[in-house]
Amino acid sequence: MTPAHFATPDAAEAAYYRAFERADYARMQSIWWDGEGVVCVHPLGPVLVGIDAVLASWRELFAGGPGLRFEVRLQGSIGSDALVVRTVAEIIRVSGESTPRPPIIASNGYRRVESGWRMVLHHASPTQEHLRPAARATAATTLH
Amino acid sequence: MTPAHFATPDAAEAAYYRAFERADYARMQSIWWDGEGVVCVHPLGPVLVGIDAVLASWRELFAGGPGLRFEVRLQGSIGSDALVVRTVAEIIRVSGESTPRPPIIASNGYRRVESGWRMVLHHASPTQEHLRPAARATAATTLH
Repeated sequence: MTPAHFATPDAAEAAYYRAFERADYARMQSIWWDGEGVVCVHPLGPVLVGIDAVLASWRELFAGGPGLRFEVRLQGSIGSDALVVRTVAEIIRVSGESTPRPPIIASNGYRRVESGWRMVLHHASPTQEHLRPAARATAATTLH
Repeated sequence: MTPAHFATPDAAEAAYYRAFERADYARMQSIWWDGEGVVCVHPLGPVLVGIDAVLASWRELFAGGPGLRFEVRLQGSIGSDALVVRTVAEIIRVSGESTPRPPIIASNGYRRVESGWRMVLHHASPTQEHLRPAARATAATTLH
């Protein structure tokens, strides 16, 4: 697939989450920079380095088809002319579940190349709430 | 404290882990860029944005004094002339514990400013092993 052309890191990020929602491997492939240096950490997973390892993880993740909806909230951003890292909270809804999962925190890096901005980093991790279902249930009980 | 001058991101990173080991708040403060855009995520914690929130977290973390030893292994790195993100595995030894904890994965960002390289991002998260003490104990039993 021809690499995508994204005018801004924001545009690349929007395309990334759309590809994730659609489990669109070809699109996801076009969003990542195809260099050796790219880094991807799925929640609680190992550090994947290089485009081959990163794409293999997406192929595996997308094997089951689409099923997630993302609401993405920008928390903070650092950047230079050539590289931007956006740290976001991902509120994820899973098909068949009535309430969203606790947020995942992700730092997404984008690099400016000739064809526009491409993804070079995705480091995603759970928040404390993710590990405290009992505490959350208690809080809900107290509130209702 | 006068901001530190680090000639390279590697030098800033070495100073960062040394300050962490020594629970040296003034040194840690000198390593971070004192801008609004800095981002820090401690393992399973919330996203802290801005130097005030980030430094408050270090003050709290260091209140108990030193007690950790870090072995840091670079996994991957992305960078431009002005911004570098190094993703590392932190092997942490806690005082009084005979074996190291499961690794923490951290993406550490450094920005080039007039005084050298300063930290602008720390996103740390546990790996799967962190959540599987039972599995690890079983493996250890099998091996010995």
